[in-house]
Amino acid sequence: MNNQKPKTPGQSAVETRYLLMPHQANPFGTAFGGGIFAWIDMVESMAARRHGGTEVVTVSIDSLSFREPVYIGDQVVLKACVNYVGRTSMEVGVQVIRENPDTGNQTIATTAHLTFVALDKDKKPIPVPPLTLQTDDEKRRYENAKLRVKNRKELRQKMK
Amino acid sequence: MNNQKPKTPGQSAVETRYLLMPHQANPFGTAFGGGIFAWIDMVESMAARRHGGTEVVTVSIDSLSFREPVYIGDQVVLKACVNYVGRTSMEVGVQVIRENPDTGNQTIATTAHLTFVALDKDKKPIPVPPLTLQTDDEKRRYENAKLRVKNRKELRQKMK
Amino acid sequence: MNNQKPKTPGQSAVETRYLLMPHQANPFGTAFGGGIFAWIDMVESMAARRHGGTEVVTVSIDSLSFREPVYIGDQVVLKACVNYVGRTSMEVGVQVIRENPDTGNQTIATTAHLTFVALDKDKKPIPVPPLTLQTDDEKRRYENAKLRVKNRKELRQKMK
Amino acid sequence: MNNQKPKTPGQSAVETRYLLMPHQANPFGTAFGGGIFAWIDMVESMAARRHGGTEVVTVSIDSLSFREPVYIGDQVVLKACVNYVGRTSMEVGVQVIRENPDTGNQTIATTAHLTFVALDKDKKPIPVPPLTLQTDDEKRRYENAKLRVKNRKELRQKMK
Amino acid sequence: MNNQKPKTPGQSAVETRYLLMPHQANPFGTAFGGGIFAWIDMVESMAARRHGGTEVVTVSIDSLSFREPVYIGDQVVLKACVNYVGRTSMEVGVQVIRENPDTGNQTIATTAHLTFVALDKDKKPIPVPPLTLQTDDEKRRYENAKLRVKNRKELRQKMK
Amino acid sequence: MNNQKPKTPGQSAVETRYLLMPHQANPFGTAFGGGIFAWIDMVESMAARRHGGTEVVTVSIDSLSFREPVYIGDQVVLKACVNYVGRTSMEVGVQVIRENPDTGNQTIATTAHLTFVALDKDKKPIPVPPLTLQTDDEKRRYENAKLRVKNRKELRQKMK
Repeated sequence: MNNQKPKTPGQSAVETRYLLMPHQANPFGTAFGGGIFAWIDMVESMAARRHGGTEVVTVSIDSLSFREPVYIGDQVVLKACVNYVGRTSMEVGVQVIRENPDTGNQTIATTAHLTFVALDKDKKPIPVPPLTLQTDDEKRRYENAKLRVKNRKELRQKMK
Repeated sequence: MNNQKPKTPGQSAVETRYLLMPHQANPFGTAFGGGIFAWIDMVESMAARRHGGTEVVTVSIDSLSFREPVYIGDQVVLKACVNYVGRTSMEVGVQVIRENPDTGNQTIATTAHLTFVALDKDKKPIPVPPLTLQTDDEKRRYENAKLRVKNRKELRQKMK
Repeated sequence: MNNQKPKTPGQSAVETRYLLMPHQANPFGTAFGGGIFAWIDMVESMAARRHGGTEVVTVSIDSLSFREPVYIGDQVVLKACVNYVGRTSMEVGVQVIRENPDTGNQTIATTAHLTFVALDKDKKPIPVPPLTLQTDDEKRRYENAKLRVKNRKELRQKMK
Repeated sequence: MNNQKPKTPGQSAVETRYLLMPHQANPFGTAFGGGIFAWIDMVESMAARRHGGTEVVTVSIDSLSFREPVYIGDQVVLKACVNYVGRTSMEVGVQVIRENPDTGNQTIATTAHLTFVALDKDKKPIPVPPLTLQTDDEKRRYENAKLRVKNRKELRQKMK
Repeated sequence: MNNQKPKTPGQSAVETRYLLMPHQANPFGTAFGGGIFAWIDMVESMAARRHGGTEVVTVSIDSLSFREPVYIGDQVVLKACVNYVGRTSMEVGVQVIRENPDTGNQTIATTAHLTFVALDKDKKPIPVPPLTLQTDDEKRRYENAKLRVKNRKELRQKMK
Repeated sequence: MNNQKPKTPGQSAVETRYLLMPHQANPFGTAFGGGIFAWIDMVESMAARRHGGTEVVTVSIDSLSFREPVYIGDQVVLKACVNYVGRTSMEVGVQVIRENPDTGNQTIATTAHLTFVALDKDKKPIPVPPLTLQTDDEKRRYENAKLRVKNRKELRQKMK
């Protein structure tokens, strides 16, 4: 049984902001996908680390959607929070928001859900604190995460 | 109607090999997830570019599973090929194989499926050549990709 | 005369969070000073850009104090806001906060004040919006910034 | 006497493929020489490591010729194999091939020969497996490598 | 008492030269401030290390003035020397000189003064050798550094 | 005929100094060969650019010998100068000197000779200023460079 004190998503949520520099662009002048993912992985792992309170490792990207390109000189805001918690695993969601530096206008450029597992000193999975849900938005994100888990299981059974 | 000459997956397949350097490791001494993904995105985009014959852009990561850590000094082999082709989109799969430099022993460290869209000069989606399937393995990968497409549509309808 | 609408420091404030990776450490195992400064310059320039609404360029570092080392694996929070505004220049202050990833304990690692100038399309200095001060803290930071400006002028006159 | 099992060049050959990104270009818009060499050194050291079965260190570049520039967006194929083996040293050759991403047309951009030495745990030179030559091409490359060794010795004697 | 043998500024002075590469530019086409500072910190720390003869750590940037932009393709010369020595601290000054690659014309792009502290094996401050001043220029730089120290103390007392 | 004003090797010589940072090390704890070469290529191209007065491109590495490893924390001094000048080409030599940061002791870690060609605005080879030799050392380096040119021609004729 897990006796750890539950935490809300807000207690581990992480927000960060980057400026897209020229060396992070691809040959077509927009952000290289690999660079955006490196930001996502770092930001989500910080949220998972704060919830789990111990070393965490990325085990899967469950969905990631590049909706809009990000341009050199854009400010990029990333907001990550824990959506769902299993025994030793955590699903963390992130929104990558492009902010036009002239107008301040914000649009969602990328969304992603990653799953992390907490590890002890011997690199073995270790239980994480339960998640306390308070707002409607937190409950909706939790239900959606459960749908993704169920959906992945169904898919694996159909695969040849 | 698409009059482009069909291509087999083998005609655009890409294989590459990296040495994991210390500056690519995370604070726990293994490959940083963001670094492995940057390799994946680059390798898969080269396969999509070779199939599509024009600029391509990553639109989504449909699944990515980090199965085993990669250590500093490991040689890492990436094998990417086009699994499935829509009108303007392509699903590319990759295997990331860790090769122990002392024994030559190989294990699968990461697998991933990404979807790319082909773009014309005005950054509008443009049809890509059809895919010709010859081997049983190519047909199996094609069927699995179709299952993933169907599965994602079902999931989107259930989401709140 | 400057007809631009005034802004409060809060309207352009920037908060961000990074994870110190091994490739950012110096030969002694802590964050390389140049790397921390690169974060500071990027974060402060984003705050200046949001206040000024146009291209900005760093003209000087007026003070920067490395109080405590940052270790590999630490989470680092940077909080930047505009303290003082001249006709075409802005002083931005930043706190770099080290967060121990196990305890969540926070300590100030670095503080800095940088001055930026706003530029028009021809790279000529251009007026920036006035600063509206509301809280006591904002007023104190403004007065301290004025002391720094005065102090620098006095120092320049004494220099040989 | 060396009792290690001989290997063919094919058993340790390495092929890899990169995409030239904007941050790897020089001020004139083509690949920075230092970046291409970093690829060459990494790829050749992987071939030498696979032949030698132990740590290897680059001791010299015996010839390297930049024949054609590589442009941003080009796909670059590197093919490395062991040409010649001494007692503790190995000469590895590489071809760097530029592939035009639109036409698929390939041209040799760079060729190079590097010499590596195998090291034991105490960083002392250690014998490497003999080389078994099977194809005419392997024999020709071996003879040319021997000419380079002889030529370097003659040159050293003439130097003042 | 400090029995270490005094050194002149010339004995630890450092000169270095860089080529500004495209990946070091900001979205406006000139050198990113963070990149220039990384050069400054590295060069000044080398001068401090040579004077102190032991590990050194940057404690503060006392003034740094970006006077002129540096462009892609420019050669950049940095000249650093120790200006002033306290018991365990050293003030190092640097000039960053932009050299136009076509004309060879040189202009001062940036100047900076940083303070370093020497550390022993346990990371505790440790005395550094005294500074011997010989030329008028060395004496002038020493007097100016003393004015900066005095000025900073006065400023700290006025701060609220 | 070339009417450009001759230059001495000293007029274009370049000296620089770097600190080896952890992110530049290979999996065995010493400087990655590709990183040292990137320094060499940058430093030599700056010397060639200063002699030629126009864009230059690396055409070949004629010899490069890694004699001693460089360790994290070492200061590394590079000294480059033009040894020999053809009509449109220049051979530049470099010494890479490892300086032990505790003792100040210097040893030669790497030597290299690279050939550059000067280009005009249309990327066509263009004549460079003649080289004036004054010291015995300059004359010796010139004669050795001529031997390397002759030696390479002989080698090419023997190659199969």
